[in-house]
Amino acid sequence: MWRDGFIAADWGTTNRRAYLLDASGKCVDEFEDGKGILSVPSGGFEEAVGDIRARLGDKPLLLAGMIGSNRGWVEAPYVPCPAGIEELARGLAWPGKREAIVPGVSLNRDGRADVMRGEEVQLVGAIAAELIDPTALVCHPGTHNKWALVRHRQIETFRTVMTGELFNLLKEHSILSDLLRGKVEVGETFCRGVRDGLDSAEVTAELFTVRARVLLGKAESSDAASYTSGLLIGTDVRIGLSEPLAAQVVVMGRPELTSLYAAAIREAKREAIELDGERCFLAGIGKLAEMI
Amino acid sequence: MWRDGFIAADWGTTNRRAYLLDASGKCVDEFEDGKGILSVPSGGFEEAVGDIRARLGDKPLLLAGMIGSNRGWVEAPYVPCPAGIEELARGLAWPGKREAIVPGVSLNRDGRADVMRGEEVQLVGAIAAELIDPTALVCHPGTHNKWALVRHRQIETFRTVMTGELFNLLKEHSILSDLLRGKVEVGETFCRGVRDGLDSAEVTAELFTVRARVLLGKAESSDAASYTSGLLIGTDVRIGLSEPLAAQVVVMGRPELTSLYAAAIREAKREAIELDGERCFLAGIGKLAEMI
Repeated sequence: MWRDGFIAADWGTTNRRAYLLDASGKCVDEFEDGKGILSVPSGGFEEAVGDIRARLGDKPLLLAGMIGSNRGWVEAPYVPCPAGIEELARGLAWPGKREAIVPGVSLNRDGRADVMRGEEVQLVGAIAAELIDPTALVCHPGTHNKWALVRHRQIETFRTVMTGELFNLLKEHSILSDLLRGKVEVGETFCRGVRDGLDSAEVTAELFTVRARVLLGKAESSDAASYTSGLLIGTDVRIGLSEPLAAQVVVMGRPELTSLYAAAIREAKREAIELDGERCFLAGIGKLAEMI
Repeated sequence: MWRDGFIAADWGTTNRRAYLLDASGKCVDEFEDGKGILSVPSGGFEEAVGDIRARLGDKPLLLAGMIGSNRGWVEAPYVPCPAGIEELARGLAWPGKREAIVPGVSLNRDGRADVMRGEEVQLVGAIAAELIDPTALVCHPGTHNKWALVRHRQIETFRTVMTGELFNLLKEHSILSDLLRGKVEVGETFCRGVRDGLDSAEVTAELFTVRARVLLGKAESSDAASYTSGLLIGTDVRIGLSEPLAAQVVVMGRPELTSLYAAAIREAKREAIELDGERCFLAGIGKLAEMI
């Protein structure tokens, strides 16, 4: 138990966000920078951790995210699901006496394989803070969207869909790049894309029609980004909701993404509760720190 | 009619291939280089055409491919399908008296939109040379795979699947890049990927399992390229064969790609005839030249 407060950090591949929590668990200072794990040279993590203490104070550190991967500081091996906060606390890796890293969660049964690293803290945080029902289907959009089934206050199973990364690849490097520069907005075009994604199992073909429709004068190029985002997210929601389930549906993460997914889930005739991912992260990391 | 022979070129986005055909229609010289249309500066096409004549002789030119697009030399507007060789001949664009460009083909009906530019010459060539039945389903793999339904010696309808481009994006720029450096080979791993693509409508999720299986020790990283290629091609074949059809199935194009698709089509319990795309191109462009 760290009685005098601690520093929590969500340390990803390209960014990190660090928070100073006081003895009562309240966040009193924070910063974000571009020092993701890929920017830290081999052997440079002590120094990169020193940066955080220089900015937020000489406190114990509880780290989550890709910092615990095999490309990070010290590997915190995946905890197999079903996993709840107790399993995460038992799986902490300790690079030093005052630094701990939260493990990721893996799925490895019934011929299925999946991994998450970072999202698990938000999930157990929402469970611990009772922001979601004890049984819920949680969608966590990001580069790699996660659909997690929470049951008995644990992550029972989950599935990753590469929606965010595919959209970025198409936007940055594909024949659709010119067309995808526009802003993605929830509206009729986005929802049409969602419906096409919900209805069609042929997304790798539907994507090319984005370009063909513009070339043939059937669509405005300014609509292409919203349509394509809708198509990919609709496909994602079709996958995520494919098993009929009476559970509450929750979308957790950055608000600009949760709003897109919540709109897509509405097109699929379900209602989703939106939760701010940062709030869930702080709830989860605070609870984990109490268990140390 | 060009009685003393002519030069044919398949001029794409990143490459061009030019052939000298003699008075009898036989190919007597050829070359390929990297002067695709994107490497030619605005106003530079006369000079780029001059290059070809400097290498193959001062003959009339019949050009096909992206050279006729709105980023090419002179736009040859799409001919709507159904389209056969007569429609292509009527749609030739003439940048000069001795230079003609073959138009692409578009689909714009029943709410569907699609375009092709370059593949149509191979298709009408295979029809004219009677390499395929008058009714056939033709798969033309490449960056953007085309499934064309040929009926009454015309391209009746077609559909594009972005398989090749998606595989390249994943290989060059994605989280799977490290895993996809290996060679793609037809074998048990490739065929397992194909079966997963044929069975699953969830390719945007299946892709992430490639990484998860390696991380969890369930698959060898050296198998990832063949599996992923199989998964995308299996998805593609599922789309292409989705309408039950008694027609002959043909795979036309570069042999290293047609062999992958032919193997995938066999996994789907159909037999496919493989045709060399260059042979079909020469048959089509020769026939078009006779019609000038």
